Amino acid sequence: MTTEPLRIAVVGAGIMGADHIARLTDRTMGAEVAAVVEPDAGRAAAAVAHLPGVSTRTRIEDALEHDDLDAVIIATPGPFHESVLLPALEAGVGILCEKPLTPDSESSLRVLQAEQKTDRPRIQVGFMRRFDEEYTQLKALIDSGEAGQLLALHCAHRNPSTPPGYTESMLITDSVVHEIDVVPWLVGEPIAAVEVRKPRRNSLAPEGLREPQLVLLETESGVLADVEISVNIQFGYQVTTDAVYERGVAETGRTGGLARYADGRLTRAEHLTYTTRFARAYDTEVQRWVNAIRRGTIDGPSAWDGYLATCVSEAGVEAQATGRRVEVAYAAKPAFYDQLG
Amino acid sequence: MTTEPLRIAVVGAGIMGADHIARLTDRTMGAEVAAVVEPDAGRAAAAVAHLPGVSTRTRIEDALEHDDLDAVIIATPGPFHESVLLPALEAGVGILCEKPLTPDSESSLRVLQAEQKTDRPRIQVGFMRRFDEEYTQLKALIDSGEAGQLLALHCAHRNPSTPPGYTESMLITDSVVHEIDVVPWLVGEPIAAVEVRKPRRNSLAPEGLREPQLVLLETESGVLADVEISVNIQFGYQVTTDAVYERGVAETGRTGGLARYADGRLTRAEHLTYTTRFARAYDTEVQRWVNAIRRGTIDGPSAWDGYLATCVSEAGVEAQATGRRVEVAYAAKPAFYDQLG
Amino acid sequence: MTTEPLRIAVVGAGIMGADHIARLTDRTMGAEVAAVVEPDAGRAAAAVAHLPGVSTRTRIEDALEHDDLDAVIIATPGPFHESVLLPALEAGVGILCEKPLTPDSESSLRVLQAEQKTDRPRIQVGFMRRFDEEYTQLKALIDSGEAGQLLALHCAHRNPSTPPGYTESMLITDSVVHEIDVVPWLVGEPIAAVEVRKPRRNSLAPEGLREPQLVLLETESGVLADVEISVNIQFGYQVTTDAVYERGVAETGRTGGLARYADGRLTRAEHLTYTTRFARAYDTEVQRWVNAIRRGTIDGPSAWDGYLATCVSEAGVEAQATGRRVEVAYAAKPAFYDQLG
Amino acid sequence: MTTEPLRIAVVGAGIMGADHIARLTDRTMGAEVAAVVEPDAGRAAAAVAHLPGVSTRTRIEDALEHDDLDAVIIATPGPFHESVLLPALEAGVGILCEKPLTPDSESSLRVLQAEQKTDRPRIQVGFMRRFDEEYTQLKALIDSGEAGQLLALHCAHRNPSTPPGYTESMLITDSVVHEIDVVPWLVGEPIAAVEVRKPRRNSLAPEGLREPQLVLLETESGVLADVEISVNIQFGYQVTTDAVYERGVAETGRTGGLARYADGRLTRAEHLTYTTRFARAYDTEVQRWVNAIRRGTIDGPSAWDGYLATCVSEAGVEAQATGRRVEVAYAAKPAFYDQLG
Repeated sequence: MTTEPLRIAVVGAGIMGADHIARLTDRTMGAEVAAVVEPDAGRAAAAVAHLPGVSTRTRIEDALEHDDLDAVIIATPGPFHESVLLPALEAGVGILCEKPLTPDSESSLRVLQAEQKTDRPRIQVGFMRRFDEEYTQLKALIDSGEAGQLLALHCAHRNPSTPPGYTESMLITDSVVHEIDVVPWLVGEPIAAVEVRKPRRNSLAPEGLREPQLVLLETESGVLADVEISVNIQFGYQVTTDAVYERGVAETGRTGGLARYADGRLTRAEHLTYTTRFARAYDTEVQRWVNAIRRGTIDGPSAWDGYLATCVSEAGVEAQATGRRVEVAYAAKPAFYDQLG
Repeated sequence: MTTEPLRIAVVGAGIMGADHIARLTDRTMGAEVAAVVEPDAGRAAAAVAHLPGVSTRTRIEDALEHDDLDAVIIATPGPFHESVLLPALEAGVGILCEKPLTPDSESSLRVLQAEQKTDRPRIQVGFMRRFDEEYTQLKALIDSGEAGQLLALHCAHRNPSTPPGYTESMLITDSVVHEIDVVPWLVGEPIAAVEVRKPRRNSLAPEGLREPQLVLLETESGVLADVEISVNIQFGYQVTTDAVYERGVAETGRTGGLARYADGRLTRAEHLTYTTRFARAYDTEVQRWVNAIRRGTIDGPSAWDGYLATCVSEAGVEAQATGRRVEVAYAAKPAFYDQLG
Repeated sequence: MTTEPLRIAVVGAGIMGADHIARLTDRTMGAEVAAVVEPDAGRAAAAVAHLPGVSTRTRIEDALEHDDLDAVIIATPGPFHESVLLPALEAGVGILCEKPLTPDSESSLRVLQAEQKTDRPRIQVGFMRRFDEEYTQLKALIDSGEAGQLLALHCAHRNPSTPPGYTESMLITDSVVHEIDVVPWLVGEPIAAVEVRKPRRNSLAPEGLREPQLVLLETESGVLADVEISVNIQFGYQVTTDAVYERGVAETGRTGGLARYADGRLTRAEHLTYTTRFARAYDTEVQRWVNAIRRGTIDGPSAWDGYLATCVSEAGVEAQATGRRVEVAYAAKPAFYDQLG
Repeated sequence: MTTEPLRIAVVGAGIMGADHIARLTDRTMGAEVAAVVEPDAGRAAAAVAHLPGVSTRTRIEDALEHDDLDAVIIATPGPFHESVLLPALEAGVGILCEKPLTPDSESSLRVLQAEQKTDRPRIQVGFMRRFDEEYTQLKALIDSGEAGQLLALHCAHRNPSTPPGYTESMLITDSVVHEIDVVPWLVGEPIAAVEVRKPRRNSLAPEGLREPQLVLLETESGVLADVEISVNIQFGYQVTTDAVYERGVAETGRTGGLARYADGRLTRAEHLTYTTRFARAYDTEVQRWVNAIRRGTIDGPSAWDGYLATCVSEAGVEAQATGRRVEVAYAAKPAFYDQLG
C-alpha cells in the first residue's frame, strides 16, 4: 500500500460534485482531487478555484488519459452515468457512482457486462444510508435475531420541497430508490414486488405532482415495507425506518439533540436537508471507499446492487402508473459478483 | 336534573363487565350499579360479592322489569348485543354498548331501525379512543387546519399475545375496529375502501393465525390510513397514530413517563394491556356518558357510527380473504341521527 | 360506611377554593359541597352560583354549627389556617388543609397539641405531589432498593411568573415547600439542614425579588437534594425530580405527549400552570381523602408532616437571609402520630 | 501551506496516547505520527507495531532533536507535562497537551512564562468538550441572548467505575476539571469561587473514596453551576449540561439514537465510556488543531485557559477538604495571550 494519496477525478461539479470535492479535500484521508470533469466551464472553474494544480476537463476520457487517475467519483445526473462508467471501467480505475447506477435496467446490464470483462468488481454505488450509524445498528439488530425474525418495515422519507423539474416518477427513481436499496440490505433478500398507493394530494406540491405516495415493497420471503414518500411537506427533512419483529419493534431516525424549553413548549431542531442529516454517512462512505480502493476492492453496494435497485425502480414506476402490484424480474446473478462475499 | 344516582345494569360480567362494575362503583359520579345481568351464576355472584343490594339477573328483560333502571352497559360478546339492545331500546333506558354494535351490518341495521322508533338516539358505542387525551389533541390539531389538510395516517396497534379462540377475522372485527372508528372521526368523513396486505407471519402466533397484517383504509376524499395490526408481538401493548399533513407530521401514543438509567441503557416502561393504556379514556368515556344520559342525550359515537364501523369490518374481512381492495357500501344516513349534531 | 355523600365545607373561595368546589362537585365520588366559608360576599356568591342549596358563611364556626358538616377543606391563605383548624378539630370533622399547615412552627405546634386532644389524627395537609403518578413510581423505585441506596436528588421547580405580592421568603414557604415535603417522603427521613445559594438574578423578576435560587436540603443520613426554584422563567410550569442512586439515575417530570413536526422542529407542549400539571394528582388526593374520611382516617401527609415542613421552611428562610447552612430543629414526635403507621 | 503531512510525536503511549496514535493514523488529514515517546519499551513497541518508520524514543528531547517534528501531543499523566512542555516550547513546535496543563498553578505559571518567551502561543490544552456538537450549539444559544441572560447551569458527570489509584482529589482535578473548563467558556467569564458538598456516599466506590460530590462553581457575575460528579454509578458514562436562562431552559447530553421496544419496555443504549461519548469531539479537536498549526496558531483552549482551570482545581481541592466556599485567585492575564482573540 502506497502512502501517496489516491488521485481522484470528480465527474460533475453540481451540488453533489462540489460536496464531494470539499469532502475529498477537507475530510478524507489518503485521497486528493486530481481532476474535475465538467462540461460547463464556469462551474468547472468555480469548483477548482481554491484547488491549485487540479485539472479541469470536459470529457472523462481526457482525464483518464492525462491525469494519472486512481479513481473517479461520478456525480452527474443518472442519464450520463453510463458514458462515464464504461471508459472508467476500461481504464481500470476505482469508481464511486452516485445513485442510480443508470436510469434503466437495460443500460445497467450493459454496465454489468462491461465490468465483468475486467478482473474484479470496481464499481461502488452511492447508497450512503448503509453507512449511517442508526441504520448500521438496525442491521446488526436484525442480523442478531435476538428479537425474532423481521416481519415488516415502516419507512418515512420526507423532504421540505422539490426542485424545479421534479416529476412523479422521480418519487420512485430519485427518492424511494434509497429505500429500494436499504430494504433488501436490511432484510437480506431481494424485493419481489412493488405496489404504489396514493393518499390525498398535497396542495403545496407543484402543479401536476401527485404526492405523497405510499410505496409497498415486498421481499422474497414476504417482509412488507411501506414507504411514505413526501417531498413538499415543508417542516423539514426526515428519514425514519422502523422495524417490526416477532418480539418487538425498533425505531430509527427520530429527532434528537439539544432540547430547548421556550414559549410554552419543548423544541428540538429538525434537519432541513439530506446534506446535514446524512453528513457523517457521506463522509464514512467516501473514506471507507478510498480505503477499499487501496486494497483493490470496494466496501459498499456493488454495481449488482445498483442493477437490482434499477429493476425495482422500473417496476415501481410501472406500479405508480397502473395502480397494480408489479412483480420484479431480475437477470441471474453473475458468479463474478460472488467474489465480493 | 335529579341528584339521585343513575341506576345502571351491567350486562355481562366478564373482564370488561367487571371493569365497568368497578368503574361505576369507585370512579364514576352520579351512577350506581343496580343490577348485573349474567347467565353464569358463579360469575354473577363474584361480580356482586362486595356490592350489597345489587340484583343479579340472567336475562336483561328481568332487570328492565324489576330493577328500576336508568341505563345499561352492554359488555357481553358482540353476538349477544342485539338481544340486549332491542329490549333496552324498548324500555327507553340509556345504553352504552361495547364495540362492535353488532357483528354484521344486517343486524346493525335492525338495531338502527329499532332505535329510530324511539324519540331520540339512546345508544352510545364504546369506542373509547375518542376520549383519550392525545387522540383528542390530534383531532383538535386536524380540525384547526393550521398544518394544512390531513393527507395520510400511519397507525400501529400491537398486543403482546392473543387469547384462545382468536381468529384471523378478529384482527379486523375485534382489533382494527378501533382504527375503523377513529380514522373517520379524525378525518371527518367515512371510509370508502379497505385492502389488507400480509407481511411475513409471526411464528409466535397460534397455529393458523396469519398475522401481523397491514390494513389500508381509504376515506372518501382519499386520506389513506395504513394500520399495522400485530397481536402476538410480545413486548407490550402499544397504540400509535401519526398524522401526515401538508406542512408537517404529528405523532401520538409514544412511550413516556419515568425514565430509568440502569445497566448501560435508558428504559421507560411500556404498557402491557389496554386496561392501563386507556384507563383514563375508559373513565372519561363512562363519566361523560353518565352526565349525558342525565341530560337526555349521548356524548360519543352513536349507533350510526357503530353501523358504519360494522360495514367497514365486513369489507375488511372480505379484503382479508380475497386480497383485493374492497369498496364499502353504506345505507343512507337516516335524518334521525342528524339531531346529534 | 354510609352511602350518603360527605358534607364538606370549603373554606376560602379564591382560585384554589373554587378549584376544590369544582372538583368536589364534578369529579369526586361520595362527597358534596355543603357550605362555602368566605368573608368576601361577592366571591362567596360567585362560588355557589350554580350550586343550589349550598350555604355561604363568613365564619367557619357558623358552618360547623349549622351545616351538618362531615369535613372541611381549608383553602385560605396560610395565616388564616390556625383559626379554622382549631374549631374544626374541636368539632371532630375531617380536615384537608392546603399547605402550609400554618406559617410558623410555633403555631403548627399549637395545632398539633389541639389535634392530640382528640381521639385520632384528622388533619391531612395538601401536599398533592405525593399523589402524582411519576412521583409514586419514583417512591416505589427508591423503596425497592433495586438500584441501590438513594444518594442525591436534583429538583427543578419552575413557574412562568409570579403574582403581585410574591416575596423572596415565599420562594421557600410557598414554592420550595413542596420539595420540602416530598424530599423526606421520598428519602424516608427528615431534613436536617438547609442552605440557599443565589445564582445571577433574573431581570424579568419583579423589582426586589432575587431569584432564581438554589436550595440545598440535606436529610439526616446525608442524602443531598438541590432544588432550583425559578418563578419568572416565562416558558412554562415545570417540576422535575431526578434521583441519583448507587447504580443509576431516574428522571421524572419530563415533557411528553403529542409530538408535532412543524417549521423545522419537533415540538411538544409544556404546562403553563400547576392546575394542569398536577390536575390528576389533585383529583386523586381529594378522592382518596374522601374515601379515608369515611373509614375514619386520613390518607396522606399528616399535621405532623405539616409541622416538619414548617420547621424546614423557617430554617430555609433563615438560610436565605444569612447565606449560611442552617440546621433544622424539631420537637419530639408525639406517640399520637404513630397510629398513622 | 505545505502539502507535506505534519510530523507529530505522541508523548505517552497509554490508553489516551494509543487513541491519539490511531486517530492521527486513521482519521486525521495532513498529519502523521513521526515518533512515539514512551519510557516503557514494551508499550512503545506495541504502539508502533503497525506503523513502519515511526521512531520510538524514551525522552522528548531525543525526538525533538532527531525526528524533524512539527508538533507534539502530550498524553502522559499530568505530573510529567511540564518536563515535556518546556523543551517542546523551546523547540518551537505546536503542542496539544492533554488536560490538565500541569497539576498545580505554580508549575502552570512557569509554563506560561516559558511560552511567553516565544513569539506566539503554541500550546493548546485538550479540553475536548468545546468541540462536542451539543456543547457548541449550547454555546451559540447562550451567545445569541435570545432566551435572555444565562443564570445557572446544572451539570452531571457520571462514570460507571474508577480505575485503581483514583483518589478523592481526582474528582476535581481529573473529572470536574472538564466542567471547570467548559463553564467559563459557556458563560464567558472566569470562575470566582468553588464549594463542594458531599451527599450520601456510594457504597460501591472503592474504600476511602467519598463520592458522589456536588461541586458549586460561581462565575464572576454570579452564574451558579452545580456539578454532580459520580464515578462509580455503574449504569453508564453520561455527561449532561443544562442551562437556565431568563426565559427558558436548554438541555444537552441526553441519551438518544435507536429505540428498542422489548420485554415490556422502551430502551436506548447509553454510553459506557468517554471514548465513545466524545469520539467525534476528539476527532474534531485534533483535526482542527492540525489545521491550526499549519496556519501557525491554535484553535481551542490555550495555556492560559489551562492555567485558569488549574487555579480552580486547586481551590476545588481546598473546598473539598475544608467544606468551605473558596474564592479563586488568578495572576493577571499577560497581554501575550490577547493575540488569540
